[in-house]
Amino acid sequence: MRQIAFQDSYPNELSHCYGCGKNNEYGHQLKSFWANDNQDVDVTDLGATTCAKFTPAQYHTALPGFVYGGILASLIDCHGTASASAIAYRQAGRVMTSKPALRFVTAALKVNYLAPTPIGVELAITGNFIEVKPKKVVVKVTIFANDIKCAEGDVIAVLMPETMSGS
Amino acid sequence: MRQIAFQDSYPNELSHCYGCGKNNEYGHQLKSFWANDNQDVDVTDLGATTCAKFTPAQYHTALPGFVYGGILASLIDCHGTASASAIAYRQAGRVMTSKPALRFVTAALKVNYLAPTPIGVELAITGNFIEVKPKKVVVKVTIFANDIKCAEGDVIAVLMPETMSGS
Repeated sequence: MRQIAFQDSYPNELSHCYGCGKNNEYGHQLKSFWANDNQDVDVTDLGATTCAKFTPAQYHTALPGFVYGGILASLIDCHGTASASAIAYRQAGRVMTSKPALRFVTAALKVNYLAPTPIGVELAITGNFIEVKPKKVVVKVTIFANDIKCAEGDVIAVLMPETMSGS
Repeated sequence: MRQIAFQDSYPNELSHCYGCGKNNEYGHQLKSFWANDNQDVDVTDLGATTCAKFTPAQYHTALPGFVYGGILASLIDCHGTASASAIAYRQAGRVMTSKPALRFVTAALKVNYLAPTPIGVELAITGNFIEVKPKKVVVKVTIFANDIKCAEGDVIAVLMPETMSGS
């Protein structure tokens, strides 16, 4: 059975994120999954716990031929917060569609750009958990192009404050 | 006299950046300036050395009402590398349109999200130099909304390797 993407489990009213919201028609619509249980996105060989794939558009460029670092930071950000949400549900023994939503936001983001990222290539994005607490999850997210590690980041994700939920 | 934006001084072939390239019609087209010499973007009261302004689109959202962190990271990234380029030219005693281009790329980026950033507000972006060497410049970039500090980042910018210049 195909997994539902973490982001596609978010409640509709919290699914407008420019990076990954299914309800943002202008956005990147990144979709993240558990790595060991997804036939579509098999990156278990990269040592991932969570995974995603994304092909930047030609206009997501930095210098000609290479992907813009802000897009890579965005992918790291959204894969990090989505992974944080997924592990929080798993630890709570709940399915991701259950309410109340365990939605995480980014408190801090650190990205190291390790190699120029070629454009026109499907990127593999992996996530591994560094720290998991009920209200704080740290995720290491790595981006590969053609199996070369191009960027690596740490996302410090915190449980969404109620002041941001609009509810 | 109105300053030319740092990014508008880049050579045409290096002006396709999704964050700030004047030749990227799909991009954000961020434009950065010296803070103490620009009537259009006066943020000297914020203690800035360099500055920019940007109003995210409504679809640049994270959760409803707030700006997506990946956009903030992108603004920090591009303002940082543009500021790095500008100080490198200034230290070389050259105008920014002179060749060869002193274009910087991001080696590492760190962003702290300090407060939810409201959408629909013009953001003030400031830059200050932490370290300036010929091939490495570190810039602290801060983003304010309604004079509230919403995000702060460090950009480690390095002189563009010749392998990325396409020349």
